[in-house]
Amino acid sequence: MPPESQDKLPQPPDGQVPKAVVNRLSLYLRELQHLVRDGHETTSSSQLGTLLGFTDAQVRKDLAYFGHFGYPGIGYRCAELIAAIRRIMGTDRGWSVAMIGTGNLGRALLGYRGFSSQNFQIVAAFDVDPAKVGGQIEGVPIFHLDDIPRVVREHKIKLGMIMVPAAAAQGVADQLVQAGIEGIVNFAPVTLALPSHVSLVGVDLAIELEQLCFAVANRKAKEAAEQADAAGK
Amino acid sequence: MPPESQDKLPQPPDGQVPKAVVNRLSLYLRELQHLVRDGHETTSSSQLGTLLGFTDAQVRKDLAYFGHFGYPGIGYRCAELIAAIRRIMGTDRGWSVAMIGTGNLGRALLGYRGFSSQNFQIVAAFDVDPAKVGGQIEGVPIFHLDDIPRVVREHKIKLGMIMVPAAAAQGVADQLVQAGIEGIVNFAPVTLALPSHVSLVGVDLAIELEQLCFAVANRKAKEAAEQADAAGK
Repeated sequence: MPPESQDKLPQPPDGQVPKAVVNRLSLYLRELQHLVRDGHETTSSSQLGTLLGFTDAQVRKDLAYFGHFGYPGIGYRCAELIAAIRRIMGTDRGWSVAMIGTGNLGRALLGYRGFSSQNFQIVAAFDVDPAKVGGQIEGVPIFHLDDIPRVVREHKIKLGMIMVPAAAAQGVADQLVQAGIEGIVNFAPVTLALPSHVSLVGVDLAIELEQLCFAVANRKAKEAAEQADAAGK
Repeated sequence: MPPESQDKLPQPPDGQVPKAVVNRLSLYLRELQHLVRDGHETTSSSQLGTLLGFTDAQVRKDLAYFGHFGYPGIGYRCAELIAAIRRIMGTDRGWSVAMIGTGNLGRALLGYRGFSSQNFQIVAAFDVDPAKVGGQIEGVPIFHLDDIPRVVREHKIKLGMIMVPAAAAQGVADQLVQAGIEGIVNFAPVTLALPSHVSLVGVDLAIELEQLCFAVANRKAKEAAEQADAAGK
């Protein structure tokens, strides 16, 4: 990161930003990108809030962790706020990503266009299947798992996505850590043990459904209780 | 839901549980399922916490939202706590799920075994491609989008997963809502507008990478600042 970009990034005093705030930054970024695509040059905390279902106070509070981005009488300049959030997230630079495992889900994500538009480039994929190794999927070369150390170093890959079966995931994670990977997105349904200097994001697609289920089941239970309550009166 | 199951589910006084707590319930459930698979009959808040990187106080506080599950001198009985969390999440019953869009990602998820093990059954998929409609993928029948109202009602489908291109997502969501769907997992990179009685979980796989990127980029910035600080002393 060039020093001037670092200078422009105000860090919160204690270096700790709540995870939920960082998550919402990604949502603000998506909405800003949509606004620009639709021809908007400026926006406001209330417009951003309305688009995402948050209050405008929430939007202002979240952004205030990182600095002052608004202009009196104008609001936010979309392009400027996009650049600021990308700098905060680290996606103002490109990131090389390795994908380990090229089953159905891996193949689907190799063709997922949403990555490159956010500056993530999958530069190498790994598998153990001799029928796949040496070939390409969606233009991405497939290497053998044993080549992880060499390929990760050669391509200066910092991020890895693990999409292998649960039983193989920890072994693959250990290989990635030894090769110098600094962050892992884990799609395998297992909790990985990683050293503290390696960041981890776990994705369990069944958990998304389960969270939805909780919302649906508990709204229905609440409605039923309210109806019973109303009928009892 | 049978009345006795409802009786056993202690609701938090105000009916509001923080989203982060519900998210951690899913993680506890996964770890408990792993523990049972490995032959453990009981566990403790400190064992669960250690497995997931939380404090034991966090585990106890999260579970306390829903009742008292531990036994003095024993801890938690795994099978009992699994049953309780499933009841809380609503996954003690089976849920029929519709998938809309059978591109690469849709196909991958039709073959994803993690859903059925958590009581989610994808019973119907929808597409507009005449080459796909009328066929099956992974044993799941493919219908035309126009058949959403009929199929959703016939199969009493309550949950839908949207995997269509961004431009088509809102239209598909409207069709699902009209057909009586109560919850949607949206994989399309767009924010959906839904009536308040329909629950929504958004999944943007690039956001997972972006969140990881923030963690990696900011840890490096922090380390660099600390090194500069140490060098300056």
